[in-house]
Amino acid sequence: MFADKLYEKIIEYKNPTVLGLDPLIEYVPDSIRKKYSNDIDAIYHFNKDLINNLHKIIPAVKCQSAYYELLGPKGGYLLQKTMDYAKSKGMLVILDCKRNDIGSTARAYANAYLNDGIYSADAITVNGYLGSDGITPFVNKCIELGKGIYILVKTSNKSSYELQDMKLENGLKVYEHMAQLVSSWGEKVIGKYGYSSVGAVIGATHPKQLAELRQTMKSSIFLVPGYGAQGGGVEDVKDAFDKYGNGAIINSSRGLMCAYKKYNLSKEQFIKAAILEALDMKEQFNKFINLKGNS
Amino acid sequence: MFADKLYEKIIEYKNPTVLGLDPLIEYVPDSIRKKYSNDIDAIYHFNKDLINNLHKIIPAVKCQSAYYELLGPKGGYLLQKTMDYAKSKGMLVILDCKRNDIGSTARAYANAYLNDGIYSADAITVNGYLGSDGITPFVNKCIELGKGIYILVKTSNKSSYELQDMKLENGLKVYEHMAQLVSSWGEKVIGKYGYSSVGAVIGATHPKQLAELRQTMKSSIFLVPGYGAQGGGVEDVKDAFDKYGNGAIINSSRGLMCAYKKYNLSKEQFIKAAILEALDMKEQFNKFINLKGNS
Repeated sequence: MFADKLYEKIIEYKNPTVLGLDPLIEYVPDSIRKKYSNDIDAIYHFNKDLINNLHKIIPAVKCQSAYYELLGPKGGYLLQKTMDYAKSKGMLVILDCKRNDIGSTARAYANAYLNDGIYSADAITVNGYLGSDGITPFVNKCIELGKGIYILVKTSNKSSYELQDMKLENGLKVYEHMAQLVSSWGEKVIGKYGYSSVGAVIGATHPKQLAELRQTMKSSIFLVPGYGAQGGGVEDVKDAFDKYGNGAIINSSRGLMCAYKKYNLSKEQFIKAAILEALDMKEQFNKFINLKGNS
Repeated sequence: MFADKLYEKIIEYKNPTVLGLDPLIEYVPDSIRKKYSNDIDAIYHFNKDLINNLHKIIPAVKCQSAYYELLGPKGGYLLQKTMDYAKSKGMLVILDCKRNDIGSTARAYANAYLNDGIYSADAITVNGYLGSDGITPFVNKCIELGKGIYILVKTSNKSSYELQDMKLENGLKVYEHMAQLVSSWGEKVIGKYGYSSVGAVIGATHPKQLAELRQTMKSSIFLVPGYGAQGGGVEDVKDAFDKYGNGAIINSSRGLMCAYKKYNLSKEQFIKAAILEALDMKEQFNKFINLKGNS
């Protein structure tokens, strides 16, 4: 099941980070672009280069569906190929697509993205605004196929407070109520390490909430976006982890894809920079956390 | 702009209904299926037959993205072709994809679905859980390109109460707070009939809420799913309309695609049944509402 696989990958790699593959053609250096007559093939080369060079450092990739959908139907093939390639290199594959709908339609989405055969992600992100019957079809895939989902709880963007921080009559905020729903939805798929395959998305830009939710959502693995380019730092996310340094994965997309900017290298040296950044992230997180595999 | 175009279409057709094209291969009769070597072409034939026979009765289509995504990347081409065909017949095209993400990613979704050139919908559905900066990129397309969006407020499914009906400290329910956000997001794109291109999704299964929200969301055109197959009837949705019978559109998907069941016809007669149902819906709504174009 997904939660156990992820837990073990984090220990094996001694690294709880995720490579976000949200490619725009502008990120791809000219030397690659001029080899191909179309953007799709150039981006696939770019993605493959990153996977080839980082798959021994980072245990998982997260593809942001929007950047593939932006390329039209051909982007669907690019997404399939990218996810298949990452899997062939032993990485877990999360598709960040934030799908949500009523039961019958949620079932169609669950079949599309979590069944083996079409997009075949190991896990996807989901929006819980519709409640249980929009979530159950995805939870069923966690149970039946060993897949995972991450449900939006407190998102990394600035305006997340407008709905998510509204205070309820019962004293909880909307995101805390969502956190309770997520915990209850995840109860049926808790693995041998105590974590559920139903996880939660909580932004790196909210360190206080990360720490509080770590206490109330004992069984949820957190998927933490917003590290790096969006402003979240290592100190901001350290409380997302449990005492073993597990229970959370930290995504970096532009921070890795465009690391050449941080390291004052040329775009052509994007791989060199991505490796430096990936190793730096691994080291940074190891300063703060005490991964079981290290002890 | 979208709100004006839709308003005028409803008057021209004297009909506020929407043809939901959420096709599954099981809905397509054998006589069509055996003509093609693959499901995509068979479903396209099915969609075209429905559009050809209903485009003079019904002013708009709503494609549920999940059923196209379920077909993999090829489903993306089917979606493009279906939407283009509906447009060529003069119908407005809504893509029901409930996208949602942080600002930079929401911009990618807005470009993918509302720019002319890739999927080119007239309007899409959006989930507002992330607040303003996840919505602004879509609103900008309403302003710049005359497109429209419908934001989830109170969804038609049974468990929608789990989050949406939670009571806030300020006395509002979560969906009422969302309704206020939707109204404020729509203020910049109000057209000549007083309606905004930023509308709201409110299920036919919630007649009381439809009536209340009609009073508080004066400028929002409601997209009302849940009529027919999900249990909503004409009486349930009549209060979604303003005093002119405008301001709301009622979607029927399985109710039209699979109308042959209701009329005790064979699946081969799905077009005959869909026409009967489309005319019945038009007549039913005209009993209750007083479309300007009728007066």
